[in-house]
Amino acid sequence: MAARKVHGSLYSPATMKPFGQVPVYEDGDVKLFESRAIIRSMAHAYAKKGNHELIYWEPKKQALVSNWVDVEDHHFEPPALKLISELVFKPMKGLAAEEVVVAEAEAELAKVLDVYEARLSKSKYLASDKFTIADLLHLPNLNYLMGTPAKKLLESRPCVRAWCDDILARPAWAKVVEMKKKGQA
Amino acid sequence: MAARKVHGSLYSPATMKPFGQVPVYEDGDVKLFESRAIIRSMAHAYAKKGNHELIYWEPKKQALVSNWVDVEDHHFEPPALKLISELVFKPMKGLAAEEVVVAEAEAELAKVLDVYEARLSKSKYLASDKFTIADLLHLPNLNYLMGTPAKKLLESRPCVRAWCDDILARPAWAKVVEMKKKGQA
Repeated sequence: MAARKVHGSLYSPATMKPFGQVPVYEDGDVKLFESRAIIRSMAHAYAKKGNHELIYWEPKKQALVSNWVDVEDHHFEPPALKLISELVFKPMKGLAAEEVVVAEAEAELAKVLDVYEARLSKSKYLASDKFTIADLLHLPNLNYLMGTPAKKLLESRPCVRAWCDDILARPAWAKVVEMKKKGQA
Repeated sequence: MAARKVHGSLYSPATMKPFGQVPVYEDGDVKLFESRAIIRSMAHAYAKKGNHELIYWEPKKQALVSNWVDVEDHHFEPPALKLISELVFKPMKGLAAEEVVVAEAEAELAKVLDVYEARLSKSKYLASDKFTIADLLHLPNLNYLMGTPAKKLLESRPCVRAWCDDILARPAWAKVVEMKKKGQA
């Protein structure tokens, strides 16, 4: 197997990340710089190596995974990032959150989470009853949100809350959190 | 094969499009509402039925398709939509374009097209030397842009220009344009 490398913010040659963003993923002659494409690719590449496949090989089932990957991208992440910026990063820099921005982002996220609540009342995870990359992609932002007052939006919806508790408790995610604490991720 | 339906804006039951957007795609018990997930799904479902596959079955090659699908989503479409709103839809309503918005969006799109020019100088299409869904996804916005003064951004870059001319001339796209003219699409 060709060497696989994922570069974080410390090392990202300009030619590999044409839009200037991180991360960058390299697998032989394949270079990827879009994070969701990297996760799709790794999930396929490593599917047969772990004890749990994060994708489906059956096109109709994988289509549902793709649908919810795009929901995270288009609907969940925009308000989540606004809240994380106001409630996590600004305080880190000693700045105050803008209340209007927080209120608007909370209202936007609440609508999205109503859709999630309806979905998760019918299936254990977003794409199906199996944990897939569609759920996994939410972990970094969910983890941040749970450390802010915006966690009330997640905790007040029973199915969303059970889903959060479940996926945030996954051993692989606990390892990432531990690595982040040690400055290794 | 189960019946496949694509619903446009005229018929989109609320339960199928939880975020209120169109289109909606239904294939048996699979319901999709994210347009790029619909296109991925259709490209897989119909891959063996046409004379040209718009995707790859080899994960590493398909990862490149996914990467450029996400580039279209995150980098190309946002400035393209701003320009189309100002230069196509506003004039349709008898409104004037906002010059500052146009200038900013043109500058943003120019940077993106510089990356495209570099990419298309090395491969005929975005993901590889084969036309894939990564290219196809650009067609509606490219078609609009070519009818506006912003086409100068596309025409001034030789590889981008050749790519536009090529993909806009594809017979399947010509059919879509014809259907749109007749109000069938």
